[in-house]
This record gives sequence, structure tokens and C-alpha cells, in this order.
Amino acid sequence: MSTITPDVVEQVHAVARRARVAARELALLTRAQKDAALHALADAIDDATAAVVAANGEDIDRGQGNGLPANLVDRLRLDEDRVHSAADALRQVAALPDPVGEVVRGSTLANGLQLRQVRVPMGVVGMIYEARPNVTVDAAGLGLKSGNAVILRGGSAAASTNAALVEVMRGGLAAQGLNPDAVNLLGEGGHDAARALMTARGLVDLVIPRGGAGLIHTVVTESTVPVIETGTGNCHVYVDASAETGMAVEIVTNSKTHRTSVCNAAESLLVHRGAAERVLPAVMEQFAAAGVTVHGDAEMQRYAEAAGAVHVPVTDEDDDTEFLSLDISARVVEDLDAAIAHVQEHTSGHTEAIVTADRSAARRFTTEVDAAAVLVNASTRFTDGAEFGFGAEIGISTQKLHARGPMALPELTTTKWVVEGDGQIR
Amino acid sequence: MSTITPDVVEQVHAVARRARVAARELALLTRAQKDAALHALADAIDDATAAVVAANGEDIDRGQGNGLPANLVDRLRLDEDRVHSAADALRQVAALPDPVGEVVRGSTLANGLQLRQVRVPMGVVGMIYEARPNVTVDAAGLGLKSGNAVILRGGSAAASTNAALVEVMRGGLAAQGLNPDAVNLLGEGGHDAARALMTARGLVDLVIPRGGAGLIHTVVTESTVPVIETGTGNCHVYVDASAETGMAVEIVTNSKTHRTSVCNAAESLLVHRGAAERVLPAVMEQFAAAGVTVHGDAEMQRYAEAAGAVHVPVTDEDDDTEFLSLDISARVVEDLDAAIAHVQEHTSGHTEAIVTADRSAARRFTTEVDAAAVLVNASTRFTDGAEFGFGAEIGISTQKLHARGPMALPELTTTKWVVEGDGQIR
Repeated sequence: MSTITPDVVEQVHAVARRARVAARELALLTRAQKDAALHALADAIDDATAAVVAANGEDIDRGQGNGLPANLVDRLRLDEDRVHSAADALRQVAALPDPVGEVVRGSTLANGLQLRQVRVPMGVVGMIYEARPNVTVDAAGLGLKSGNAVILRGGSAAASTNAALVEVMRGGLAAQGLNPDAVNLLGEGGHDAARALMTARGLVDLVIPRGGAGLIHTVVTESTVPVIETGTGNCHVYVDASAETGMAVEIVTNSKTHRTSVCNAAESLLVHRGAAERVLPAVMEQFAAAGVTVHGDAEMQRYAEAAGAVHVPVTDEDDDTEFLSLDISARVVEDLDAAIAHVQEHTSGHTEAIVTADRSAARRFTTEVDAAAVLVNASTRFTDGAEFGFGAEIGISTQKLHARGPMALPELTTTKWVVEGDGQIR
Repeated sequence: MSTITPDVVEQVHAVARRARVAARELALLTRAQKDAALHALADAIDDATAAVVAANGEDIDRGQGNGLPANLVDRLRLDEDRVHSAADALRQVAALPDPVGEVVRGSTLANGLQLRQVRVPMGVVGMIYEARPNVTVDAAGLGLKSGNAVILRGGSAAASTNAALVEVMRGGLAAQGLNPDAVNLLGEGGHDAARALMTARGLVDLVIPRGGAGLIHTVVTESTVPVIETGTGNCHVYVDASAETGMAVEIVTNSKTHRTSVCNAAESLLVHRGAAERVLPAVMEQFAAAGVTVHGDAEMQRYAEAAGAVHVPVTDEDDDTEFLSLDISARVVEDLDAAIAHVQEHTSGHTEAIVTADRSAARRFTTEVDAAAVLVNASTRFTDGAEFGFGAEIGISTQKLHARGPMALPELTTTKWVVEGDGQIR
């Protein structure tokens, strides 16, 4: 790891120190004040739609000039409707309960000390992410509601859009009499700014990376600030011997094809030998219709061939690959044990699903498979903050520390023990 | 950071892979099986008392030969009584509730999906610690009860004692028909073994350092495995204008002198100008009697001088020093605002106390001070797992992620979302 330019470190630390001051103020706000601010920020973004769309146009032009692929240009694009959607997301965050101040547990000790564990903001939260500009607004809104100042480091492809959005939100905060340093953008300093952010231990309380595997790996290995790893999903669907045919076909197809670029899409199919002949012809027909390429073992390839689905031999690497495309690795397994062993070996710890009519198989799968979410008879696509009923989500944690699975407002808080006595000593 | 000897990495990874296998087995044990194993381990340690004391004698002899200070020799010493105490600690862990399997929250979604968030073991937990051999037994016991395999890296000063204890515990596990790889000791490989452990990402789920500031700093900055930072306590006691005199004197004295080498001892005293003349003469008398050295501002030094307490001028460095000795930094402050500002600037995030009769001052202090525990009218010495009623503790977290304050069994677990449906797709 090379050293970071000292000037950039100083700039980032200065931002972080201002954010800490703002965080102390945010921690004291009531829910009513925070909700009013969220509505004001939403209105400010709506009012600034033309400016945001214009700034986004600069990013789009630059991206197209640099040969950015069409799907990434689409991710980057903010038209009027998408700007209004981003603003609406803030209003939805306002409607969510305030996690701050919740008493998580408490007791009175034998000596009369009264203990309570109270939910409090983290303080300063850094977000390092790629080209989706709506993350800029979501992270600011979730941060504000949970009483945290945020330091945003978005992808350079969205630099103008992010600058415009953050300028509008900081203006909205100031207009509400709140400290604009609650929302900060690291717009300069290149990769060094991101590295200065993730090593600002003591100034930044938490860093959340959102993006591709490379970004997440860099943050996880280089950060000295506590990190929550998010989003890599090598999700399996296992079709048990007892699976109902129609249900299995629907769940496999939906998990793979409903939306391929997301972390909760299925990337691997395992089918019990006893269900193969019953289930696979219909699965492969669906795959053929959707244009899925099957990376299959010999048996899977035979079913794919018969249904006219594209197929290639599965490799060991495929077993560990998050395709994020219309590809799936597929193997026939001998039994539940083999399925669980395969999942245990290759899971990324995101979402694993079993389709079964057998209570005992469901019970073993949910107990023995170690992942953020283990699903029985449901599409992998349900592992999602909105689907789980949490409202907005800041990411899906695939690590075990602090948060696991969809992260929403409570996951952006920590706790504090408040202990009240009347002179107790030891 | 220099590279780690490849052989040591391979040895540590081999231990970690075996521990992962054991962890999967541990995760499936019932509470009854785990409690029976804890009692069996306790009995095995009791039965092996002579061998453990003999091994400890080797460590003591080596330490004394190397000029180890008497207080560290005492920490290292395991006589018969202490061996029995260590065994009893395992029986106490057996009596604690099992965190594994607890349903933390749950709901049924509009589409009929049934969600529940279930507490599950972390998997493999690494402990890196210094010379106290009882940590070896406590960590193994807490790990077993919470369904985790542990990899222990104790201080080299206790190498023979730790080896004897772990051998006895592994034998006890095997005698119960359990996998001995649930408890592992890294007895060789020097510092490289610790570094291989803290970079075994994917094989080790969590590393907890316990020891001095240097050890903790190394683990926090070099680890790529998620870490929980523990134990640095620059704890303040603030005596407010309204504090009752007798209570203030008792709390200050107890916080500073009850036990000086522990992280929840007070290291800084702040006294409101309006309470100084009323409270400080008696505080300084107690300090003089206990042999406390007061690192004071001019006013504090005058009170110290008058009472015959040893005093030196306070330095900026003193404000940030965890003395762990009969020293205290001490300043008179103008008001509550100044006290809160000082604490906010210098807190290590462990324990902060206010002595006050004023509800408003208590409310402001507990709300605005950001630490794992904020105490009103009680000694800082109460921030402790046993005092809080948690039973044994694995450490006191001073970070905000995952756990904050005394960490016991639930903090050694994570959660898993189990989602059950009947064919739901998106």
C-alpha cells in the first residue's frame, strides 16, 4: 500500500472533524426535527430538479465520451422522474420510526443501580460507493434519520450529479437551521480521498462500501476504521427431492431471471437426483426462453440441450462466481448432505434457498447453512430491506459482526449504557 | 508491515480450517450438551490441578529468570486455588442462558412470508491476549457455550500454563465425544502466528484482542478479520456543583483507588468550581491516605498541597493518559459545559461518570457524553460484565460496532434470517 498524499489526508480529516461537530448536534435532535428536515430536503431536491438533471447531463456526456457501456450510463442517469423518486425516498425515511433513544434492555441491580441500554447514533459514517447517484440521497437521508453525519465518496463517473445533490441537501439543512456538515461529499482527491477516509480512525466511526467485489475487497483490507462488508451474493437455490414441481420451476426461474445484476439473484442451481427428471425439463425450458446460459455438469447439460438452452461445462471457478448476468452454475447432487456441503463450501454468506416439501430437510438446511438469510420455498430475490419491511436499506451485510442481512436504520446505530445510582461504590 | 513466514501462515490456516469443522458441529449442539461439556471440562481441570500448577511453575521460573516484575509474576501465577477458580468459572458459564437459537425479532409479510431473525454462533473466534492464564479457560468456556470454536493466542510468558490448560480441555472435549478442535492454542510461531490469525479472513470470523494499548493498536490496524477493540479506559469522574459532598468523595476515591490496574478505574477528575472548596479538601485527604499522585492544575495542586497529597503539574499528555496506577489528572472546570467538552475531547469511550444532585445536569451528561457507559452517582468500577449481571465477560468493547461495553455470551453470536414461504416469487 503506497502512502497517501498528505494534503488529501489533511483535507479529509478536516471534513471529518467538521462532521463530528455536526454529529454531536444531530444526536440531540428530536424525531420531529429530523423528519421536518427530511421533508425540507426532499422539497429542496424537487425544486432543484432542473439543476440536478443538468449536472447529470454533464456526467452522462463525459461517460459516453469515455465509452461507458450503455447499462452503466443507464445506472448513472437521473431524469426528472428519478430525481423526484430520490426526493420521495427521503419522505419515506421520514415516515420510518426513529431508532435513536430506543431502550434495548435494562435492569435494576441488587445494589439499586438502574441500567438501561439506549440506542444512540454511530457518529460519523463514511460511504464509499460507485455510480448510482440515488445512493447519495439515500445515505444522507438514512444518516440524518439515524442521527449520523455522513461522508460520501461516490464514483467519479457521477461527480457532477453528486456535487449538485449534496449542494442542494446542504443548502436545505442550512435553511432549516441545521449544520450543513451533517452531509459531506469527498469530491476531490481521487482514490487517496477514499483511502484517507477509511484510515481516519477516531474521526470516522464506520465505513460502508457499496459496489463491486474489487471496491469491497479494497475497503475491507485497507480500512482501519470498522467496516461492514456488503453485497457479494453467490446465492444458491437447492431443489430437494420432495420439491413441488411447479413451485421449484417458479422459484428457480424467478431467483435467476427476475433481475440479474443484483446481489440477491441466484447464481447456482443444485437439484437432488430424485427431482431432476421431474423438475429440470421445465426449468430448462424457462432458462431457454429467458436466454440463460447453463454452466452445467454432464447431466444438467443433457437437460439444457434437450430444452434448447445454451449450455457450457461447469468449472470449479463457476462454483464461486457471482455472474450478475444470465448465467448460472448448475449441478445435480446425490442428496441433501451433498447439497448442504456444496453450499457451505461456496456460499458468500448472502442468501441460500431450499425448495422442499419435507419439514426435516427444511429444518436441516436452515440450521446448517451459514448465511445472512436462509429461505425455504421462496425466491432469493426477497432478501432486501424494502421486501423485509424495513423501508430503505443502506446495504446488505454479508459479514457477521454488528449487522447481517439487509441493513436499515437500527443498523446505523450503536448503544450506550446509562447507569443511574445514588452513591453506589464497590 | 513485513511479510509473515509462509510456514506459519500455513500452520495457522490449518488450525483455522480444523476449527471451522468443529464450529459447524458446535453450532448444532443443544444447551444440555454444551452445559454437560462445560462441567466435564471443569472437572478435568480440577483433576489436572497438579499438572497445571507444575506447568505454571515453569512459566514463573522462566519469568523470574528474565526479570519479570513481581506484579506480572503475580498475574501469571496459578496456584491450586486459582486453578479451582478457573474451573468454577466454567461451571458458572454453564449456568448462564444459551444465547444460540434466541429469536431476536420476526414478522409475517403481506405476501405470507414468515421471517425470523435467529441468534447463531459467529463460527471461529480468535483471542489474542497477554499473560493472564485464566483468560485461556474463560475464552474456551464462553466460546463453547456460544457455539464458537476458539483459537487462542496467549502471551509467551504463559506458554507452558496455556499449553497444559488447553491440553486438558481438548482431552475433556474428546472424552465427551466432542471435537477437540473446538479449542485451539497457537503455541508456536511467535508474533507471526498472531499476525497470521488476524489476517485469516474467511477462515476466522472475529478477533478479540485483550491486553495493553500496544497489543490492541497492532491488532486493530493490522487485522483484516473483523475486530472488536477492547479495554482502553481513560475514565473521568466529574463532580458537579450540586454534588452531595460525602457521595462525591466516596465515588471519586473508589473510582480511583479500588483497583488501579483495571480499565474501569478513574484516570481523570473534573470538579465544578462551585463544588471545589466543599469537596476537594476531603477528596485530597483520601488521595493522600491512599498514596495517589495528583497531576493537577494550579487550583487542584493547592488543595493537594493543603491535604499533604503528592502533586505535580498536569500536562496535556496527562489528559489523555490511562495511568493504570495511583495517578490521576485533575482539573477544576468552570461549568457543566466545560466538563462535557473536556470529556468529549479526551474520552476513550469506555466509562464516564457524573456526581450530581441536579436532574438537568445528569440528563445532559448522559445524553451528550459518547461512551460505552455513562454513570450518574456511581463508581466507574461498575462497568463490568459480572457487575452488570451478565456473568463472565470476554472483554469490554470501546468501539461502536457490534458490541459496546461489557461483552458476554450474546456478543459472541451473530444472527441469521430464516424466511419460510410456500412458493413466493417476485
